[in-house]
Amino acid sequence: VRRAVLLLLGATVASVAPPAGAAGASAPFEAWPYLPVAERLMQQATNQTLGFRRLEYLCDTFGPRLSGTTNLEAALDWIIAELKRDGFDRVRTEPVLVPHWVRGEESLHLLEPHPRPLHALALGGSVATPAEGITAEVLVVKSFADLAAQAAEARGKIVLYDFPYTGYGSGLPYRSRGASEAAKVGAVASLIRSLTPFSMQTPHTGMMRYEAGVPRIPHAAVSVEDTLFIQRCHDRGQRVVVRLRLGAQTLPDAPSRNVIAEVTGREKPEQFVVLGGHTDSWDVGTGAIDDASGCLATWEAARLLRQLEPRPRRTVRLVLWVNEENGLRGARAYRTNHNDELPRHSLALEADLGVFRPEGFSFNGSAPARQMMQAITRLLERLGASRLEPGEGGADTSPLAQAGVPVSELLTQRERYFWFHHTVADTIDKLQPDEFNQCVAALAVVAYAVAELPELLPR
Amino acid sequence: VRRAVLLLLGATVASVAPPAGAAGASAPFEAWPYLPVAERLMQQATNQTLGFRRLEYLCDTFGPRLSGTTNLEAALDWIIAELKRDGFDRVRTEPVLVPHWVRGEESLHLLEPHPRPLHALALGGSVATPAEGITAEVLVVKSFADLAAQAAEARGKIVLYDFPYTGYGSGLPYRSRGASEAAKVGAVASLIRSLTPFSMQTPHTGMMRYEAGVPRIPHAAVSVEDTLFIQRCHDRGQRVVVRLRLGAQTLPDAPSRNVIAEVTGREKPEQFVVLGGHTDSWDVGTGAIDDASGCLATWEAARLLRQLEPRPRRTVRLVLWVNEENGLRGARAYRTNHNDELPRHSLALEADLGVFRPEGFSFNGSAPARQMMQAITRLLERLGASRLEPGEGGADTSPLAQAGVPVSELLTQRERYFWFHHTVADTIDKLQPDEFNQCVAALAVVAYAVAELPELLPR
Repeated sequence: VRRAVLLLLGATVASVAPPAGAAGASAPFEAWPYLPVAERLMQQATNQTLGFRRLEYLCDTFGPRLSGTTNLEAALDWIIAELKRDGFDRVRTEPVLVPHWVRGEESLHLLEPHPRPLHALALGGSVATPAEGITAEVLVVKSFADLAAQAAEARGKIVLYDFPYTGYGSGLPYRSRGASEAAKVGAVASLIRSLTPFSMQTPHTGMMRYEAGVPRIPHAAVSVEDTLFIQRCHDRGQRVVVRLRLGAQTLPDAPSRNVIAEVTGREKPEQFVVLGGHTDSWDVGTGAIDDASGCLATWEAARLLRQLEPRPRRTVRLVLWVNEENGLRGARAYRTNHNDELPRHSLALEADLGVFRPEGFSFNGSAPARQMMQAITRLLERLGASRLEPGEGGADTSPLAQAGVPVSELLTQRERYFWFHHTVADTIDKLQPDEFNQCVAALAVVAYAVAELPELLPR
Repeated sequence: VRRAVLLLLGATVASVAPPAGAAGASAPFEAWPYLPVAERLMQQATNQTLGFRRLEYLCDTFGPRLSGTTNLEAALDWIIAELKRDGFDRVRTEPVLVPHWVRGEESLHLLEPHPRPLHALALGGSVATPAEGITAEVLVVKSFADLAAQAAEARGKIVLYDFPYTGYGSGLPYRSRGASEAAKVGAVASLIRSLTPFSMQTPHTGMMRYEAGVPRIPHAAVSVEDTLFIQRCHDRGQRVVVRLRLGAQTLPDAPSRNVIAEVTGREKPEQFVVLGGHTDSWDVGTGAIDDASGCLATWEAARLLRQLEPRPRRTVRLVLWVNEENGLRGARAYRTNHNDELPRHSLALEADLGVFRPEGFSFNGSAPARQMMQAITRLLERLGASRLEPGEGGADTSPLAQAGVPVSELLTQRERYFWFHHTVADTIDKLQPDEFNQCVAALAVVAYAVAELPELLPR
């Protein structure tokens, strides 16, 4: 029923220009004037195959794209060439110095109660072990409080954090700070339960940090299965001894690039709607979900907007940030480089939660802007993607949010996002072309409507 | 509602002896007289923790149990000691010579279009490659018919079967016969898409065979992700070259054992209801689902029956077969050793589809026996496990079925069974203690009722 109403409304207002001053305080903002173009964009997105084929090609050809790798730079070269081939305006790169961490050879072996290999991945930024590895008894703790309570037991041991997983955030403190907290009580290395609700012996990597002035000890993630195994041994009173070998190295920062391409606005080219994803990925899997799919979906949305006649009122700027995973250097560089323009950024929109079936958007901005965004996302009702919820936006737009730019992130049916990302299973086969196209449609409609508004989104 | 009726019926007939001749042709067989004991068994099963704790201990302590390994023999020693501790009658072993295939070091590397490791597992029984591996171009085929059509292209190549997966059975011919069929057209090795509906870069091993008189070439399973990757490269016209290294060996047959324990029947000790699972597993994961859980669930069911006062009319015989995975030698030995008794086997019941939430049983026997089994499984309605469907029974009972013994298999909510079994992810954490106990209840009730029938199940 709602769809019929929408279509009827769309037909009625098809020839009506967007009302000037629709965002004024007197009357609530209505987005129906944008429906005819929105419908056309949704239709066009449904029929595309280029975007998903490019996504397959990118993942298959270049593989994982950790900052500092030749894989990443080759992928960026290809992206730039394809953006130029699409006819975008001002296709260019902006230099970014990125961290260059290399995993190297690594292993975790159980020695007691019986010998067998375990499944682990060094966390990004970890130091190496000595070549012969670190062999020590494991102390299992449930939390930092539990570590404090058992501090007298920790010296000379390898601490394993088997925190209760209640969502991705529940484990981040252990991934981020676990090594330094364990080092403070004399541990020689630290391990965490992988941050995931589902595992097939698939450890989950990610970023960690060292606290200044605290000894740097190796830090790795163990599969959920092996964590639970060690926990059960511990509960039975069995002594668990492992040998951890990490060959990780941190090399000097490496040159890389943000990629930018534009659809110049027809009336206000100096005002911007930014959308994009991040080109780098972890070094396991092929970063198909996190975040090649976000790059390709926003790229494809921008490509549809480029084909609009007339083009949107403001400039639509595709920004493909680099180094989201282990530094956020690309996002910071973008803010620095474009500081003067930030007051003229109406919205920064990221796709970095997997291009699964779209459900809506998160939004971080003023109340009047939120009301306008809600009216705009209602255009996506027939896609089932009209939800608007409060949220911080993606990591790459966070420096912009701090500078006052309204930010938004595509929300998708993402139960399985956390099964796959940061693991060897982050591969293209987990994504569906029709869902990809639905995401393209949702991104294109929101970017279009915001670029077409009479004014910038109110801050 | 149905549960209330059952409980009422149970209360009504609690003191009524099972009616003689209930299986007669004149009136349909009714199982309600068995309800009071069935209810008691279901209640007792719900409150147990020993079975699941033993399952954890077995998997954690002995790990994978491929035929011929010391892991398996150590696990069998422990099982025998625990069965004796439980007080079963006539706890004993029967010798079985089992195949002794050893995986060794192995790898599959992509060389073209770009170098990276792929995810593969040798299939059980495969020969090794030369130490330096086999390096060759990959020919992707969809079926044996497709292989025949492309036979002229196969010489000197590695054939990859990317069959359409439509269920476990859909890929078995390629796993079993794929190497010999590829060898006939001159291939130097063969690969199959892993037989699974879900993958996290988790290749799926299993048994393969060589046809007599055909050159023996190495045969391995590739992860679904990597298969689809190679298929996409192939579809794009990209040449795919890989290097396969398998270090597999087939050693001389090794001595092993079936394990048998009994609850001697109070009236007809010479008649048997057999139930059990298989003790061996593949060499990846810990064989928790396939089939330590089936062994422990049937063991626990038998333990509950041992505690009944009075004991069941017939002897309940727990049989823990060895070498289901790569030879079925235990199942064949049992039939040979017990050939004289087979006419006195009322039922042989296996649990080998994972101890997930029970849904019912498959049954392979005469129509009158099926009607009786349906009446018996109706006792499990409150567990949601009353379904009875036609089926061949488990692999270990198949030699008994061929000899005319009615056979049955526990059916469980097994969508995910095929995600995990034969992979590194076959670990105990995929199972739930409450579901395990429900399976124990279902197995105990069926074994009890069949052991208590006035006559053997009619053939």
